[in-house]
Amino acid sequence: MMKLSRFFLSRSADNIKTSRIKDSLWSHNSTSLASISTARENLVTGGKYEGRPFVDYPIFKGKAALSMYPVPPKFNKMNSGSIHLERRGVVMLTFWPAIGQRKYDWQKRQHFALSAVELGSLISLGPTDSCEFFHDPSMNTSLAGQVRKTFQVSPLSDDGGYYFNMSVVNPNQKINERFSVPVSKAEFAVMRTSFSYILPHIMGWDCFTSPQPETTLKVNPPKQPGPLLSPDLEWNR
Amino acid sequence: MMKLSRFFLSRSADNIKTSRIKDSLWSHNSTSLASISTARENLVTGGKYEGRPFVDYPIFKGKAALSMYPVPPKFNKMNSGSIHLERRGVVMLTFWPAIGQRKYDWQKRQHFALSAVELGSLISLGPTDSCEFFHDPSMNTSLAGQVRKTFQVSPLSDDGGYYFNMSVVNPNQKINERFSVPVSKAEFAVMRTSFSYILPHIMGWDCFTSPQPETTLKVNPPKQPGPLLSPDLEWNR
Amino acid sequence: MMKLSRFFLSRSADNIKTSRIKDSLWSHNSTSLASISTARENLVTGGKYEGRPFVDYPIFKGKAALSMYPVPPKFNKMNSGSIHLERRGVVMLTFWPAIGQRKYDWQKRQHFALSAVELGSLISLGPTDSCEFFHDPSMNTSLAGQVRKTFQVSPLSDDGGYYFNMSVVNPNQKINERFSVPVSKAEFAVMRTSFSYILPHIMGWDCFTSPQPETTLKVNPPKQPGPLLSPDLEWNR
Amino acid sequence: MMKLSRFFLSRSADNIKTSRIKDSLWSHNSTSLASISTARENLVTGGKYEGRPFVDYPIFKGKAALSMYPVPPKFNKMNSGSIHLERRGVVMLTFWPAIGQRKYDWQKRQHFALSAVELGSLISLGPTDSCEFFHDPSMNTSLAGQVRKTFQVSPLSDDGGYYFNMSVVNPNQKINERFSVPVSKAEFAVMRTSFSYILPHIMGWDCFTSPQPETTLKVNPPKQPGPLLSPDLEWNR
Repeated sequence: MMKLSRFFLSRSADNIKTSRIKDSLWSHNSTSLASISTARENLVTGGKYEGRPFVDYPIFKGKAALSMYPVPPKFNKMNSGSIHLERRGVVMLTFWPAIGQRKYDWQKRQHFALSAVELGSLISLGPTDSCEFFHDPSMNTSLAGQVRKTFQVSPLSDDGGYYFNMSVVNPNQKINERFSVPVSKAEFAVMRTSFSYILPHIMGWDCFTSPQPETTLKVNPPKQPGPLLSPDLEWNR
Repeated sequence: MMKLSRFFLSRSADNIKTSRIKDSLWSHNSTSLASISTARENLVTGGKYEGRPFVDYPIFKGKAALSMYPVPPKFNKMNSGSIHLERRGVVMLTFWPAIGQRKYDWQKRQHFALSAVELGSLISLGPTDSCEFFHDPSMNTSLAGQVRKTFQVSPLSDDGGYYFNMSVVNPNQKINERFSVPVSKAEFAVMRTSFSYILPHIMGWDCFTSPQPETTLKVNPPKQPGPLLSPDLEWNR
Repeated sequence: MMKLSRFFLSRSADNIKTSRIKDSLWSHNSTSLASISTARENLVTGGKYEGRPFVDYPIFKGKAALSMYPVPPKFNKMNSGSIHLERRGVVMLTFWPAIGQRKYDWQKRQHFALSAVELGSLISLGPTDSCEFFHDPSMNTSLAGQVRKTFQVSPLSDDGGYYFNMSVVNPNQKINERFSVPVSKAEFAVMRTSFSYILPHIMGWDCFTSPQPETTLKVNPPKQPGPLLSPDLEWNR
Repeated sequence: MMKLSRFFLSRSADNIKTSRIKDSLWSHNSTSLASISTARENLVTGGKYEGRPFVDYPIFKGKAALSMYPVPPKFNKMNSGSIHLERRGVVMLTFWPAIGQRKYDWQKRQHFALSAVELGSLISLGPTDSCEFFHDPSMNTSLAGQVRKTFQVSPLSDDGGYYFNMSVVNPNQKINERFSVPVSKAEFAVMRTSFSYILPHIMGWDCFTSPQPETTLKVNPPKQPGPLLSPDLEWNR
């Protein structure tokens, strides 16, 4: 119901025959509500954003929606008193499909977590460049290769934007999703600027300006880290 | 009276035959006073900048003046304790007309609020690119289409700058204003740099460095957001 | 004496036949001492950097030295409680001449304060562009035109760097100084990056991340601002 | 032992035939453990990162590994109450060699500290440019020229990346090491972005946003600074 009204609002922007204003209205009108629904689910399943606002940036297009938000790095304080980086931050991309006119299905969302170096290749893309990343949650386990996520960026023919394509194949959960979101030059400029801004922060290089990061106390040295796509990021629904 | 002396100061820069120094003197000499008058009006009608400085950046040209300042995002704290983004910030452009030699009429000012994606298209403009945005305060109401704001940026012939044109048509209030401000390459570099800096902040992506944003307590979930150009931004005089 | 040893240190870098390492050694070896002498003089004459470090960045070349440091904007708190920007910040350039082998004369220094829009034209300079600024401390007074400062930037023939030329003519004080400092591509990249970083801060646009700037209480509304090159910046020795 | 498992993890990424994902997995999987071992050694020998997280960014390639982390500037508080910059910060590069399949020898690491102007030449490198820096810890002493460090960056033939080559010759300690690490376009974009971010901070120009830097009290004026490569940075093992 909420969803319906949300996309009615968004779509009504179409009556104005301008692509840019459509962009801005879409992203705006849908922001708050998207934030709410997402934030709720997030706080329930994770709770790891307590006291920190949830600031996604959504883009709604014909076949699917794409949302992005930064996930901060994770620090641990050893009983030695030293603080170290347990895991870098990421920029989380979330895709969810359109299921007809003005309707998108949040339940079918899929996540893709962009690491520092993946952000690096995005922000350094030339107008005709493309790039592709593969993520495998089971890597280094006996299940390696069964589940695959692919994120691929290729240039739009016309206006300096890019296609953002993502696919997930998970035979165990009978998931075989494909998403394709055209990102305009203006929208990509927002990404390039915000990704460039956030990159040093997810690397933890803002330690100069904020010398005392939030930490979780750990009495024992940290155990070996899981693979890049650890469950609490890309894989919990 | 104040206005008079102010623009006498500004104009006197003309005696020095250099365009750049003119730019810098204009923008400086007029800064403080512009800030004052604007800030006052602002604090009266809005009061939403209590305890935060009002930092506009004005440019004075032959036919009109253009001023810009950032408006922070708005967060709400739910009684669940979670914080979410109710509305993104914007960069507010204000145009007001010249009414003769060294005189500008602040009463005739008109606002245009630039969203994240609109800033994105501005900062990614090539030397020969142009862009255009339309805003309609009554969108999604029975009054849609009656009032229209248009902001258009097109390249200057010579020096790598741009024309900033804005028009407002509001039959109800019998308003039909047009503003045209030539922005030099140096002035646009100031915009590109400050807009790129502010973009992640109006998106709320500075949550890493400032984890506890100012919030307004809300007991009930936020109501549906208004259209992008909500009255308390672009439309209150 | 200190000066002597300082420039002996610097010059000795010449024995290594590399321009870049020379750059880095020069700027380093001379940093602390330059900071000290400058900071002292500064604290005596101004005292306005109490509790804030003085962070100049000096470059030493054959005929002259060039140093730059940021000067923060100045805010006032009205008894109404509102805070406004009284004066923008600047980037202060200081030139002082070489007076023979390994000797520079700090007493002969001259200042040039770069405003936001002047920084804008610097950071947007193309490889073959040049720019020129004129400052007149007596502008809008009966003494206008008597004292002139000129700062001019033009491309180096070879490596993508620029000549920084500054001249001061002040008949009253019998001053007629000329400074010329070749700035390498690497040194200019440091300027472009640090100037782009500081620009939003001297505009006061960092109010989002630091909402409570230092202010000086003012019971009366601020008087009319002086010209750009107010004495307490460029003109006090 | 830890090292072994660490590089087994890393290498296993090879089974996926994509260079980019390899990059991201390598840098991730090895991050935490690299941080730990490095941070430990660091805290023991230096202890100067107490209360501040150690945030290196490592890259593992066939013949050697390369890690980078920022070192903040050092301020002193005079008993006059004034604060001044005693030493600028640097970005510390650490190279350590591969000693066979999936094995790297941290004991053979060598450091190279990049100054502001050296970072400036890195971030302004064109696709076909190269640069070279020489460091001599004994410069300005009788031992000058005996020990030499060379860091050289040259373009990769193909993809827009660069070779990072470093060599150390120290006859006294019988050290003659050579390291060569190919840095991909995406990895260099991470460097360019994080180096551009950190540059104003190591210059101390973030004094606007963080007016009160950590300082060490000094009753006497600071003694003359050592050469750029002071022992507590590049030369302690």
